[in-house]
Amino acid sequence: TNCLILNTWAQPTFRFNFCTSMAAFNRSNLEELLKKRFFYAPSFQSYGGVAGLYDYGPPGCALQSNILELWRRHFVLEEDMLEMDGTIMTLAEVLKTSGHVDKFADWMVKDVKTGDIFRADHLVEAVLEARLEGDKQARSANVEAVGVSAAADKKKKKKGKVQAVELKKDTREEYEDILAKIDNYTGPELGEIIRKHNIKSPETENDLSEPVEFNLMFESSIGPTGTTKGYLRPETAQGQFLNFKKFLEFNNDKMPFASASIGRSFRNEISPRSGLLRVREFTMAEIEHYVDPQSKNHTRFDEVKDIKLRLLPQGVQAEGKTEPIEISIGEAVEKKVVDNETLGYFLARIHLFLIRLGIKIEKLRFRQHMPNEMAHYACDCWDAEIQSSYGWIECVGCADRSAYDLTVHSNRTKEKLVVRESLLEPLVYEKTVLEINKKVFGPKLRQNAKTVEEYLLNLNEGQLDNLKKALEDGNGTTTVPGVDGNTYEVSSDFLTIQRKTITEHVREYIPNVIEPSFGIGRILYSLIEHVYWIREGDEQRGVLSFPPRVAPFKCLLVPLSNNPSFTDLVRNISAKLRKLNIAIKVDDSSNSIGRRYSRNDELGTPFAITIDFQSVNDDTVTLRERDTTKQIREKVDTILQVLKDLVEEDIAWEDVMKKYPTFTQQELD
Amino acid sequence: TNCLILNTWAQPTFRFNFCTSMAAFNRSNLEELLKKRFFYAPSFQSYGGVAGLYDYGPPGCALQSNILELWRRHFVLEEDMLEMDGTIMTLAEVLKTSGHVDKFADWMVKDVKTGDIFRADHLVEAVLEARLEGDKQARSANVEAVGVSAAADKKKKKKGKVQAVELKKDTREEYEDILAKIDNYTGPELGEIIRKHNIKSPETENDLSEPVEFNLMFESSIGPTGTTKGYLRPETAQGQFLNFKKFLEFNNDKMPFASASIGRSFRNEISPRSGLLRVREFTMAEIEHYVDPQSKNHTRFDEVKDIKLRLLPQGVQAEGKTEPIEISIGEAVEKKVVDNETLGYFLARIHLFLIRLGIKIEKLRFRQHMPNEMAHYACDCWDAEIQSSYGWIECVGCADRSAYDLTVHSNRTKEKLVVRESLLEPLVYEKTVLEINKKVFGPKLRQNAKTVEEYLLNLNEGQLDNLKKALEDGNGTTTVPGVDGNTYEVSSDFLTIQRKTITEHVREYIPNVIEPSFGIGRILYSLIEHVYWIREGDEQRGVLSFPPRVAPFKCLLVPLSNNPSFTDLVRNISAKLRKLNIAIKVDDSSNSIGRRYSRNDELGTPFAITIDFQSVNDDTVTLRERDTTKQIREKVDTILQVLKDLVEEDIAWEDVMKKYPTFTQQELD
Repeated sequence: TNCLILNTWAQPTFRFNFCTSMAAFNRSNLEELLKKRFFYAPSFQSYGGVAGLYDYGPPGCALQSNILELWRRHFVLEEDMLEMDGTIMTLAEVLKTSGHVDKFADWMVKDVKTGDIFRADHLVEAVLEARLEGDKQARSANVEAVGVSAAADKKKKKKGKVQAVELKKDTREEYEDILAKIDNYTGPELGEIIRKHNIKSPETENDLSEPVEFNLMFESSIGPTGTTKGYLRPETAQGQFLNFKKFLEFNNDKMPFASASIGRSFRNEISPRSGLLRVREFTMAEIEHYVDPQSKNHTRFDEVKDIKLRLLPQGVQAEGKTEPIEISIGEAVEKKVVDNETLGYFLARIHLFLIRLGIKIEKLRFRQHMPNEMAHYACDCWDAEIQSSYGWIECVGCADRSAYDLTVHSNRTKEKLVVRESLLEPLVYEKTVLEINKKVFGPKLRQNAKTVEEYLLNLNEGQLDNLKKALEDGNGTTTVPGVDGNTYEVSSDFLTIQRKTITEHVREYIPNVIEPSFGIGRILYSLIEHVYWIREGDEQRGVLSFPPRVAPFKCLLVPLSNNPSFTDLVRNISAKLRKLNIAIKVDDSSNSIGRRYSRNDELGTPFAITIDFQSVNDDTVTLRERDTTKQIREKVDTILQVLKDLVEEDIAWEDVMKKYPTFTQQELD
Repeated sequence: TNCLILNTWAQPTFRFNFCTSMAAFNRSNLEELLKKRFFYAPSFQSYGGVAGLYDYGPPGCALQSNILELWRRHFVLEEDMLEMDGTIMTLAEVLKTSGHVDKFADWMVKDVKTGDIFRADHLVEAVLEARLEGDKQARSANVEAVGVSAAADKKKKKKGKVQAVELKKDTREEYEDILAKIDNYTGPELGEIIRKHNIKSPETENDLSEPVEFNLMFESSIGPTGTTKGYLRPETAQGQFLNFKKFLEFNNDKMPFASASIGRSFRNEISPRSGLLRVREFTMAEIEHYVDPQSKNHTRFDEVKDIKLRLLPQGVQAEGKTEPIEISIGEAVEKKVVDNETLGYFLARIHLFLIRLGIKIEKLRFRQHMPNEMAHYACDCWDAEIQSSYGWIECVGCADRSAYDLTVHSNRTKEKLVVRESLLEPLVYEKTVLEINKKVFGPKLRQNAKTVEEYLLNLNEGQLDNLKKALEDGNGTTTVPGVDGNTYEVSSDFLTIQRKTITEHVREYIPNVIEPSFGIGRILYSLIEHVYWIREGDEQRGVLSFPPRVAPFKCLLVPLSNNPSFTDLVRNISAKLRKLNIAIKVDDSSNSIGRRYSRNDELGTPFAITIDFQSVNDDTVTLRERDTTKQIREKVDTILQVLKDLVEEDIAWEDVMKKYPTFTQQELD
């Protein structure tokens, strides 16, 4: 689809892959938990909601903040990136230049009677997949083997009803071929497929209109006159490019460097679905790393070269395989699987970041864009895809955008977006050069001097050589056109054309841009799936095993009961935890301790401090770890120090368990 | 103006007060510095820019992040507030209910010939102020005494040309009266003033149109159908209110509590001016604190009660005075200057927050809204106003919004937004109660049973008493209307009306909302003005004395020269500083040390570590403090520990100077 012509969207097309390995995973149970604990909820729910808009509640919001803080630390702080915060409202002209106004669109079709609107490629896909599924069912009684989860099945049925009808072999093959290429059809081609394969409006069976383009940007008008058009930005990148000159100056004109931005972007999806994975408003974190096109090496590449990534390069995909190859990034760059060191460096850094968040390594792969997916100007592009119950989803894009963006903006605005580099050794070369003796030229050509001069100054070397020859042939005179179209006589009295030795001390170039672009909501949702599990023997007890750094709340503080003798201690310890900048949740409700623990398992709170009657006497409290449910009991100040170290991931719980005796006395009810 | 009917805008009307005390301050110099160091810049500058839209460059962006982090720590973490992150795109219906669609507007007038648009109140204000100024000039030769800075004068001239024309005394008084009330006129009233005082389009002297309302929300359309209208939110508050039920549940149904949100809001200003103080897109941080209307006391009020605030209550303003009274918040609440403890608590907390950021205490005051400024539903409202070269600017609003918002949304959506509270002692009272014996009622009234029952169930106590009497008077029968309007006979056979004792165990109420609302860009700009100064004896050396916690970069790392022997040490110390999570800026440019220090003075970087030849030999470095320019020299690890403590404001530089000897040897060039 057209959205892939520009290659930086955090939200490209993806398909619902049937994921057999996730069969045991029950998405509705997880969704129930996330709703109950207010990780997120549809916006304006009491007003009926709007598809693709979500509010993050306290745990979702804290989780997002923590992911962003880690991102800032891992990328911005680590490499002195120049972070900026630009406006969401964007002048239409900027997005016209970048290509978004013309090309950032999807194809939609209408039910000719009801007016219902469908995204054309999604509809074709759903219908053909349903027909293939029906074919499978017709040809085999063993429906179970398909491994469709109940939820996916339900969703699927809504769009394309599965009827057990056997297909002819060549029809089947044609469908499979269309599905394999579904991302690449133009609107007219989708229209052709719809007609040829008799695809109708799914609920009504009415005819469908021809596909028409729908631009995915939200449009608005700036100021009271109605003449200044604006769009909500679809990415933060353009705002960064426009400030390139200021960044370069801020960076003391040193290259390479990166700018970065965290912020909200918008995409007016035709019919958003799949929860946080396809939304109309989302938080992105984007890096634009500016490099010399002649040298895309990276000074810190050595630090990452031995890191093994799971890559799905073009070659592997072209063979129809989906099994990634495991290879060190050093080797991948050496073998030119990945185009250059800088791109490789960022792939490795993205890998480290995602693993650090808690993404499971076996559910992470880097897929290279196929040549037809890539923008025409892109040198290479890799997506970090994370596997969830929705299939393999692009969560981070990492593209080499070449000099495209800086070039188009510079052409449009006439602001030079270049790097000027003093050459250590000057560049020396020969060149044919024209010199005009103005003292003679002016008086001779009088009012025509300007039009002739303008013509002459625009001549390239070959043309100058020709002119030189014409002057020689004409014994020092010949005629040239002015820019006004008339013909004028010129003479070697005032024109000298000769080879000269040029010495350049400064090189000027437009940098290339390597762009890692993170869809934070997608990473957040995938992470939640990855850390979700059910405590053995109890279907109701979901646990979210976030790493401490990422967990929304770090510590639960529970008094054993609401006995007033605990009040002071609770207040005292809360105050100390706040001073340590540790996000806590106090639960002094009358629920049983066990119930309160399991509520916080669902919130993913890694630790809990419990205050009991012994605490009041000897100033000791217990510290419980979420995943093991093991506890230790020590003096308050010791526990707080241990907790601080655990939360900052300076020590692991295993080490704590080695150092302090396990506490087993306290009864959970 | 109309924007004050709803009282939560972070950006209300304000005037350019002539601020004589700031006469020494040169705003253009500061602006030059901020531009040069890329604190912020107009968005899309190379495309000509758009008024009221700004990008924050690296130091501005870091400063904003640090302010927000401190905010989150000071408010959210400190009081376990429930932070959420909602969408910017808002369903139109939501903002219809809240009153924004109808009332969030300013009045504009058009030049009838050129079509130029002006905000009506601003135009009247500028023209009348210019006339008064002209009158002053005509009556006195001493123009200097007016104390208008060059920049303000220029701005003023653009809108209202100052001509030295003397006014009649009553005209002068009339103008002054209008200016005093300028915020409160309706559109038609402004039109009347424009006609009466012959106000014309300032550049062309053409006539002006009647004032028309211009809604300040950016409008857009959600999805492909064009039928779902959306606005960019003008505040984060509504998104919080809509989630009240989920928050309450998340909080285990405990009251009081607060929700909070940080995010971008939008306001399509008619003609924005004054830099970051009046913009079309801005970052807000808002708290909605939900309280029992019957008890607005605050459990932590004791902690703040002795804090002295500079208050400008209604009474003082009514007397035409602008000198704030200094009073402890405890006393202010006790004397009912401030309505209640919770409001008082937040005023004190806002004060503490702003002071901690570096806002100067003498340039901070809390101004109470006058009755005509306040929304009709608001109980009390105070603005934290910060003084800058633009005058006293509202930077934080703190309003008691009563139960208004929850009530209107609840009425519109039928979703109950209430607190149900178990009563410790049940509420016992007598009440006239109707009982219907359905077994008789149904068969008697047959198909009319429903209309009569509905009528009866809607009767209040007084009406029931009347009905009882009518039944008694009619010997057990009387007639009542049904809701269909017809009359029906009813009888005491199936209607019993009697006094009963009611015992209620649960109280249900709609909470009131106290809302502290922070305009982050305004605070940020005011702070910059407050910490800006010029190092003595050198006009070129501006310094921004941000407190370490807030400073964009914490430490400059400078090698004495670009001698290669420093490279390892620079890399080594950078790595250690990153591990300590300290934002640094390495400056290994070839500029002199002095030049590099002063560049970082302009960035407000509080500390600098300098690496020189001695460092290579004995592993010591110097640490320089920005404001005093004093230095100490110690081993690297000692310096890093000191720096960490300084950055976290655990120690002050004075203490460091006491502990370590001052280093003076190094020459600055």
